[in-house]
Amino acid sequence: MERELLYLEDFVAGQRFTSGEYEITEQGIRAFAAEFDPQPFHLDEAAAKASVFAGLAASGWHTAAVTMRLLVTSGLPFAGGLIGLGGEIAWPRPTRPGDIVHVESEIVDVRPSRTKPMQGIVTVRNVLKNQKGEDLQIFTAKILSFRRSACAPS
Amino acid sequence: MERELLYLEDFVAGQRFTSGEYEITEQGIRAFAAEFDPQPFHLDEAAAKASVFAGLAASGWHTAAVTMRLLVTSGLPFAGGLIGLGGEIAWPRPTRPGDIVHVESEIVDVRPSRTKPMQGIVTVRNVLKNQKGEDLQIFTAKILSFRRSACAPS
Repeated sequence: MERELLYLEDFVAGQRFTSGEYEITEQGIRAFAAEFDPQPFHLDEAAAKASVFAGLAASGWHTAAVTMRLLVTSGLPFAGGLIGLGGEIAWPRPTRPGDIVHVESEIVDVRPSRTKPMQGIVTVRNVLKNQKGEDLQIFTAKILSFRRSACAPS
Repeated sequence: MERELLYLEDFVAGQRFTSGEYEITEQGIRAFAAEFDPQPFHLDEAAAKASVFAGLAASGWHTAAVTMRLLVTSGLPFAGGLIGLGGEIAWPRPTRPGDIVHVESEIVDVRPSRTKPMQGIVTVRNVLKNQKGEDLQIFTAKILSFRRSACAPS
């Protein structure tokens, strides 16, 4: 990864980042669901057709995990890594087999810590989109960020 | 699963549910991270020791996925399945190798849909706890719930 890493003092509200792409496969949907979300509409096409999803859909947590992969590998160049404290998540529509997804991120707020001078919290709105530009997941995250001087090589 | 499934009209604020247990393993932490959150503090003990986590920690999304497994298999007996629309998530402390976790859930709000008479939204606060009773994740979820008549066998 050749990306320039960003520190707390580099972030400003309105900055935007776009990740690379990831293809959602039926096999991936089933494998994740079998381990973590074993419900018929994530595992079986016929059961999924009869469900509220009207077809096989990825677990929302699979969608979230893929979003994280994209953010870590290409989306958000936070120095010190992507350490989320939490946030608000919504899945406005299902993720489907064959979807090619990417994340569009926007810095919403930058807040230095009152108690820890070397760090702060950056709020980022991350929208996972499919190849049609439809929003699959919106995750507004609070992410730990470090000042440049906190990460100086020791 | 022999649990009695609950419909929209069965839920009331204050109801509580407790899931079974799940053991977090170092192998599980690494496997999830390699696929979805490839950061050193989720993959390598030495790097993790030097990080803000001060030791190997599970990806927050791994923690979320394990929580979902517990909710689906033993925690929340929603008729029609566990279909989350979104919610608020926080990770107050890291999930560690060897942690034995379970979920304690409480119904916070029950709201019939204004437009879809056969369904509604149930808000549930789900706290993932380790064997010491420490909170690892708090996820307040909005979950789709169906009226009994919506799920009548056809």
